[in-house]
Amino acid sequence: MANKTEDKELGFGTKTSAQKTRLINPDGSFNIKRIEQSRWNSTSIYHALISMSWLKFNLIIFCYFIVINLIFAVTYYFAGLEGLRGIEGETEIDKFLEAFFFSTQTVSTVGFGRLSPGSHSISIIAAIESLVGLLGFAIVTGVIYGRFSRPKARIIFSKKAIVAPFKDGAAFQFRIANKMRNSQISDIEARVTVAKLELENGVLIRRFRPLELEIKKIIFFPMTWTINHPIDENSPLYGMTAKDLLESDAEFMILLSGFDDTFSQTVSSRFSYTHEEVAYGAKFISVFGQNEEGQTTQDLNKISDYEIVK
Amino acid sequence: MANKTEDKELGFGTKTSAQKTRLINPDGSFNIKRIEQSRWNSTSIYHALISMSWLKFNLIIFCYFIVINLIFAVTYYFAGLEGLRGIEGETEIDKFLEAFFFSTQTVSTVGFGRLSPGSHSISIIAAIESLVGLLGFAIVTGVIYGRFSRPKARIIFSKKAIVAPFKDGAAFQFRIANKMRNSQISDIEARVTVAKLELENGVLIRRFRPLELEIKKIIFFPMTWTINHPIDENSPLYGMTAKDLLESDAEFMILLSGFDDTFSQTVSSRFSYTHEEVAYGAKFISVFGQNEEGQTTQDLNKISDYEIVK
Amino acid sequence: MANKTEDKELGFGTKTSAQKTRLINPDGSFNIKRIEQSRWNSTSIYHALISMSWLKFNLIIFCYFIVINLIFAVTYYFAGLEGLRGIEGETEIDKFLEAFFFSTQTVSTVGFGRLSPGSHSISIIAAIESLVGLLGFAIVTGVIYGRFSRPKARIIFSKKAIVAPFKDGAAFQFRIANKMRNSQISDIEARVTVAKLELENGVLIRRFRPLELEIKKIIFFPMTWTINHPIDENSPLYGMTAKDLLESDAEFMILLSGFDDTFSQTVSSRFSYTHEEVAYGAKFISVFGQNEEGQTTQDLNKISDYEIVK
Amino acid sequence: MANKTEDKELGFGTKTSAQKTRLINPDGSFNIKRIEQSRWNSTSIYHALISMSWLKFNLIIFCYFIVINLIFAVTYYFAGLEGLRGIEGETEIDKFLEAFFFSTQTVSTVGFGRLSPGSHSISIIAAIESLVGLLGFAIVTGVIYGRFSRPKARIIFSKKAIVAPFKDGAAFQFRIANKMRNSQISDIEARVTVAKLELENGVLIRRFRPLELEIKKIIFFPMTWTINHPIDENSPLYGMTAKDLLESDAEFMILLSGFDDTFSQTVSSRFSYTHEEVAYGAKFISVFGQNEEGQTTQDLNKISDYEIVK
Repeated sequence: MANKTEDKELGFGTKTSAQKTRLINPDGSFNIKRIEQSRWNSTSIYHALISMSWLKFNLIIFCYFIVINLIFAVTYYFAGLEGLRGIEGETEIDKFLEAFFFSTQTVSTVGFGRLSPGSHSISIIAAIESLVGLLGFAIVTGVIYGRFSRPKARIIFSKKAIVAPFKDGAAFQFRIANKMRNSQISDIEARVTVAKLELENGVLIRRFRPLELEIKKIIFFPMTWTINHPIDENSPLYGMTAKDLLESDAEFMILLSGFDDTFSQTVSSRFSYTHEEVAYGAKFISVFGQNEEGQTTQDLNKISDYEIVK
Repeated sequence: MANKTEDKELGFGTKTSAQKTRLINPDGSFNIKRIEQSRWNSTSIYHALISMSWLKFNLIIFCYFIVINLIFAVTYYFAGLEGLRGIEGETEIDKFLEAFFFSTQTVSTVGFGRLSPGSHSISIIAAIESLVGLLGFAIVTGVIYGRFSRPKARIIFSKKAIVAPFKDGAAFQFRIANKMRNSQISDIEARVTVAKLELENGVLIRRFRPLELEIKKIIFFPMTWTINHPIDENSPLYGMTAKDLLESDAEFMILLSGFDDTFSQTVSSRFSYTHEEVAYGAKFISVFGQNEEGQTTQDLNKISDYEIVK
Repeated sequence: MANKTEDKELGFGTKTSAQKTRLINPDGSFNIKRIEQSRWNSTSIYHALISMSWLKFNLIIFCYFIVINLIFAVTYYFAGLEGLRGIEGETEIDKFLEAFFFSTQTVSTVGFGRLSPGSHSISIIAAIESLVGLLGFAIVTGVIYGRFSRPKARIIFSKKAIVAPFKDGAAFQFRIANKMRNSQISDIEARVTVAKLELENGVLIRRFRPLELEIKKIIFFPMTWTINHPIDENSPLYGMTAKDLLESDAEFMILLSGFDDTFSQTVSSRFSYTHEEVAYGAKFISVFGQNEEGQTTQDLNKISDYEIVK
Repeated sequence: MANKTEDKELGFGTKTSAQKTRLINPDGSFNIKRIEQSRWNSTSIYHALISMSWLKFNLIIFCYFIVINLIFAVTYYFAGLEGLRGIEGETEIDKFLEAFFFSTQTVSTVGFGRLSPGSHSISIIAAIESLVGLLGFAIVTGVIYGRFSRPKARIIFSKKAIVAPFKDGAAFQFRIANKMRNSQISDIEARVTVAKLELENGVLIRRFRPLELEIKKIIFFPMTWTINHPIDENSPLYGMTAKDLLESDAEFMILLSGFDDTFSQTVSSRFSYTHEEVAYGAKFISVFGQNEEGQTTQDLNKISDYEIVK
């Protein structure tokens, strides 16, 4: 009964017992497929725009710029290009291109003026286009600031977790580092849960067991932090071999949260290790050194390095 | 005495005893009418602008654009259109329209130049108008970013709450899901209170009773969560039938709060179920399935689906 | 000794014993004079710009616009106006005015083009001015968004606190309401402290005594909240008359904090009542009513209304 | 064992035992050298842009403006300047300069129009340049708002910490003040740890010992706050002389966190005192006074002033 409560507190429920793949993807998202009606609202669009790559973002802006100008060029064309002063093209294509360029000069509010509205209809369309341009640009500005201020995953995890010798027994360990060179995280807290299949009344049920950590929270996070779960008699991992981990389809789920000094906000990071990503009988190699000025150094390239000790 | 304290802690007081309608509207706002002097300040305007629909927002911008240009067109007209170079209209209406178009080209900072200020007075007005345009545009940019970054209600609630069989007795349950496809909520906590009329010394008084939840808080929220209040002897719902709920004018008030990973901020959501929105003797139908890749699926279209079990 | 600790926890220390004026101003700022070297940095300027009135803000923008254009007009003038195409003025004043108007058209990026740079020197200055204009406008946009998103004092306090009959004794009470029509505050918490002079070893020392509240925190804040400190034998106000309050120069300092749903952020509000702002033997008049639809109403105009009861 | 846990909770580990320099720099950053592969991503650039000085920021914008215009000037030049209307220069250099000025008028969207695109190729490039200008300007606006809204270090620390007489013994003290004239910090909390070398089994190990504070947290922070650690028998400093501090290479590490009213966000500040920055047998000189209006004054210029008392 107590177990059941414990499980539910994680929020996964037991419906995932038959899941054959990992529960948390390497990027921290949940590996669960949503079935739903389309709900493509403005928040979703905004979220997509702030989380895509800069390359893709710029391409979208560029395409939007082309499309909006094509639409207005066609509108000017049908409104009558005789109302557009300064047109010099002789062929229809040249005239259309000039309408297109007039549109680019209007939507960007450059307005050179060699091409300029001469009729009421062209003037009205140009007025609307300049407003469209200003609004579009306001949206782009908002999205760009959203991209900048969006909290990013700022934690590097060691590629593998290890089971290391610890005191008289062993401990489950993994190592993290602050990805950002010039920002700091304070009061960082770790919560680790193992999801594994357990035989109950002859049925395999996926259970979620919290792992007690030696240290749950650290005040400063200037370096790497090796998160350590001693495998004592109270541990859900007690007595389990690598083969047991495999057979129970174990996955270690991690939630880190802390206070980011740069943006003065609480940030969190999810991660998981499957049983294949756990090295038994290993020990992390120190990332620390000292340079000639007597300053402690840490080599983040070694964050995932470990050696086999038994 | 303890009860009284309990009530007050919710913040509604007992003055709502005679209320004939629900206390919390479906959108989470409180169904209480404020009487006050007008306090239509800039914060209110800003709040209205960021919470209205995009359609309404764009219409307001468009109308504002028309009005500001009409005002400046009139100003130019009375300042003397002989000072506006490039005017070609013969009739007063045509001249006024050209002044209007000049205004649109100035406020949007397009400035084609076919129409351009030629006198000192027109130059001064145009300078002021361009400043007005820039400020207006800065405000629009700020509001648009406000619209984007505003936390939205991101929780879907099942249409009805149910009273379901649970262990040897029954439980009050409702189901929630994360509305956002691509953002996550961690550490989500639920608080549920029932407001119901109780007979005290011969008078019906509205009392607010907290409902103890089986699980108050979950770490991850990857799927749906069925919030569960077991109706045991300590429950304010103990022994109440559907008819009792009706007669006591019961309303279940819910406050959810959690940490939104996308925007790194705490978000909250209010909701309520009236006694008419509670199905007795029902059971939620599972939203879970499994696709061919062995991945767990959840069908959010079924979030409100339940079956009658007794 | 314990008392001393209690005092210090408030953060005022005992150096304010001789203060003859209130400690917290009606707007929530502290009434303590800072002596310091000038530290007029960009954060201060930004803070001043986002907290001033809109009228003052717009005036500053307008003056800045005039000054920047005067500076550039002078620069163009000395760079040689023969390089500025389209100048038509005959007198030096007219020429200078045209340079000024050219500057306004450049800094706002309108660029009509009737006046346009014809020499290299004018072209260079105009290029710099357009950059200055863009940067200035970016700053204004940032400040305007800062003005919008700045958390405001959103709590209305009753003009007076009262000492009301309560159970068998009395209670210190004041009433608050949510100022914002369309935003909600959840989990609002109140902390009240009385600062009063006490005779210790023959010396008057200002002591800060926390007041225990009947309810410290409410979940919802849909209406007004009457914050209530019962004056029992443990209260620092026990046995004190209005005259005692006067003689001890009492001031009631209040800190409210809560979670604002609209902006998803924690907000706080400071306030204080001096002994002159406490009405003895009074009772708040209810703000509640009911309209024809059976909806509870609250009349915020009555927030400060009380009646004398003894 | 307990000690080891205590140490780890700070997050420095014991690898820093041999560090010859301070652990926390005066600006609050950690004095630890990171070795890593280049990860110069957009977040780093953004962070650099919002944390540099305004002078440097403006210089970078200016240089970027020059470079982007040079690039486009070259592009126009090779696209064929015969397509650029209004060119009057006779020499190639003059022509190139006019192309450069045309570029500045396009990227800033001024678009005077004396120079204007006359060929399709120039029109296309100008359209792209105006888009580049708008995007660049949107980025600058976002960065400028980021600069404004970035939480700054708002705490002034006394230049030295002192060991002052306190009750029958002594206390470790330092003094802080709110740097910001017009913003307030509530609920400010201090955590102080001493890092010092200790002899364990014949080896010098750097240990991190928390210092118990007389007051950990204050509600209001209207003035200066003298943070006070009484050196009693439980203190890690008990019985240590200035010479002991030197020999143990002691460093006092401080983490302050509080709630900033102006920006409604939690802010934190790191600081440290090395053993050289501790004055023994000293006492802070009061910063308080009173002006003619009976208002308490505090002189922040005296924040670091102390006198030797024994």
